[in-house]
Amino acid sequence: MKIIEGTIASPKGFHAAGLHSGLKKTKKDLGMIYSDVPAAAAAVYTTNQVKAAPIFVTKEAMVDATIQAVVVNSAYANACTGKIGAENALAMQALAAEQLAVPKETVAVASTGVIGKQLPMEIIEKGIKQIDLPTANPYDFHEAILTTDTSTKEIVVSAKINGQTVTMAGVAKGSGMIHPNMATMLAFITTDAQISSELLQGILADKTETTFNQITVDGDTSTNDLVLVLANGLAENPMIEIGTPAYETFVEMFQLVSEALAKLIAKDGEGATKLIEVEVVGASNPSDARLAAKKVVGSSLVKTAMFGEDPNWGRIICAVGYAGSQTDPEKIDMWIGQQQLLKHSQPQEFDEAEMKQTLEKEKILITVDLNIGEAKGKAWGCDLTYKYVEVNALYHT
Amino acid sequence: MKIIEGTIASPKGFHAAGLHSGLKKTKKDLGMIYSDVPAAAAAVYTTNQVKAAPIFVTKEAMVDATIQAVVVNSAYANACTGKIGAENALAMQALAAEQLAVPKETVAVASTGVIGKQLPMEIIEKGIKQIDLPTANPYDFHEAILTTDTSTKEIVVSAKINGQTVTMAGVAKGSGMIHPNMATMLAFITTDAQISSELLQGILADKTETTFNQITVDGDTSTNDLVLVLANGLAENPMIEIGTPAYETFVEMFQLVSEALAKLIAKDGEGATKLIEVEVVGASNPSDARLAAKKVVGSSLVKTAMFGEDPNWGRIICAVGYAGSQTDPEKIDMWIGQQQLLKHSQPQEFDEAEMKQTLEKEKILITVDLNIGEAKGKAWGCDLTYKYVEVNALYHT
Repeated sequence: MKIIEGTIASPKGFHAAGLHSGLKKTKKDLGMIYSDVPAAAAAVYTTNQVKAAPIFVTKEAMVDATIQAVVVNSAYANACTGKIGAENALAMQALAAEQLAVPKETVAVASTGVIGKQLPMEIIEKGIKQIDLPTANPYDFHEAILTTDTSTKEIVVSAKINGQTVTMAGVAKGSGMIHPNMATMLAFITTDAQISSELLQGILADKTETTFNQITVDGDTSTNDLVLVLANGLAENPMIEIGTPAYETFVEMFQLVSEALAKLIAKDGEGATKLIEVEVVGASNPSDARLAAKKVVGSSLVKTAMFGEDPNWGRIICAVGYAGSQTDPEKIDMWIGQQQLLKHSQPQEFDEAEMKQTLEKEKILITVDLNIGEAKGKAWGCDLTYKYVEVNALYHT
Repeated sequence: MKIIEGTIASPKGFHAAGLHSGLKKTKKDLGMIYSDVPAAAAAVYTTNQVKAAPIFVTKEAMVDATIQAVVVNSAYANACTGKIGAENALAMQALAAEQLAVPKETVAVASTGVIGKQLPMEIIEKGIKQIDLPTANPYDFHEAILTTDTSTKEIVVSAKINGQTVTMAGVAKGSGMIHPNMATMLAFITTDAQISSELLQGILADKTETTFNQITVDGDTSTNDLVLVLANGLAENPMIEIGTPAYETFVEMFQLVSEALAKLIAKDGEGATKLIEVEVVGASNPSDARLAAKKVVGSSLVKTAMFGEDPNWGRIICAVGYAGSQTDPEKIDMWIGQQQLLKHSQPQEFDEAEMKQTLEKEKILITVDLNIGEAKGKAWGCDLTYKYVEVNALYHT
């Protein structure tokens, strides 16, 4: 398995495009993905009870777990937009289907941006009609889905599966409202592997638990989140069956792509200067480990301490204590980077100069050993900075 | 019932003192409360699994629900301090008991401040020995318990109960790590009412749910939280019995004191410029209403929007959506101040100039009607500002 250069259109038979339609002032704001053949598909959606209109349209398209195209706009979330919003999401689906000459039930729709404003449909329509896949640069899609993100987020991997080269590509956007259970996060994963939608859905649900759902920027869960996976089978590997080495390889690829995208999202949290990775080990079960890791990485006090480059283990152990995971408060070990700060919940001497160097880095690793079991789990987040406040206080509706 | 000027020592037979012992550079850092007679007592403690040493000492003292004195230090939390910390908390109790000539089992101990550093016991000892209640100014106690608070927090009320004037006083500290279920929050309530500790504990538990546990500053729950109530009976009212008008009056006093302290803590959150009150009505039950209110007031995106004085109802409805309360996403009404922003989840026209004035104020009221039931609940918090990041990033261990 190797990481390669590429785009969301690197797997065989996939095409993608993105352009500036006019929803944003100058940046790209409309994108499409297309597969030469209908693809087996899997999706997970926001858990927010208030869901955006495109979520319903995509869920409906996913009834037969087959998708051939995806249309995405940024700048407008099309959430809290009532009947008109629902009609607009359906219209967006129909326009994309017409442009690509595919049945509209095979088109997934996603939106991200401001809540409560109606999509300007003339702009959307004009934009969709401008998309010309044969001449398009697929990388433009990566840009077209961004909101306050400061960089595109992508990863492409390839591996041999039963003698065939299989490619998998992932692209995502994140930034704000990033927390548990899908945030204003959109992630699209394409692969030319041949695999059933049932297996794909199982793998996605499983890996979402340990990757996308383990990142937090600000504790808010958005109305629009979506991870969508398309597998079009054009690598012509024999159909992947559960329990085989081919399945293991595919799951490994999926884990690599999902974790890489999750980390990229966490690192590019609004205003962030650092990626924080928290690993909890020695827990009584994996979900307890993940819960504690996510509470630590989500603590505003830990996040500001990391911004201030202060090894404030008191705030970390405090977050472990209120996480709700099974814990023996007297047994906690803790490290930042390679340096141990706590042994059995008691402070340890450490080299301050070395710690300063560790905390100056762009990636900080916090390890907590609960010393009560064998299970472990990770979570990713970012520091809380002046810039976060600026981005979110100056943003006006 | 009326609000009166006064201190924690306003109820009959209570005395209090505070001084600068040397734990902080110049500010007061050590305080005591004393009752002329043993008082019926009630307490609620932090829910954090990692608890500070003084919490254990106070719990032990509370076994018979009788307390005569309280000793509190700020600057050091005495949390994660192991056996030495436990011994120091006991020593603090013994020193206070000796100074006041009361049994040490009647002395409650509380600490607040930095986690993981041992109390400098020589300073504590010297400080306790300097306390002279007859000459002390009780207001100094209000100052002595503060950490990053910018002002003292107190309220005193009096009412007639069965012909006797009963006084109740509350004093608190808050600021950071303020969230559900007790935060770095200390609150002390004294009253000269005659009431059993059983009734007192019931009232405290009940009112904590709707007041202290409904405030959030940063989502962190501290290791040291404590609300302690002392009722010494010196008002000489007939013993308050449940279900009587006297009981109703006492509960009303308690509600007024608890809610006032809770709001004062929320308003003085680290870096805060505004108090935000969220009331959720039309919920299917009170705990759902409180949950939704607390999620809205705790959302970093809502908090930054309020700092930016932007009526960002999208972030508010988003928080309602992920709160986990029973909700019909199509039926939500919303107001900021007197202006309606949403009717049945659809945006309404509003006067922008008037909204600007509403949002410029120091207190902002957000009302959400779920329109599915009759229950309601409130929560209080503050805006998220540059200053919050500064206070917590520049703070070094």
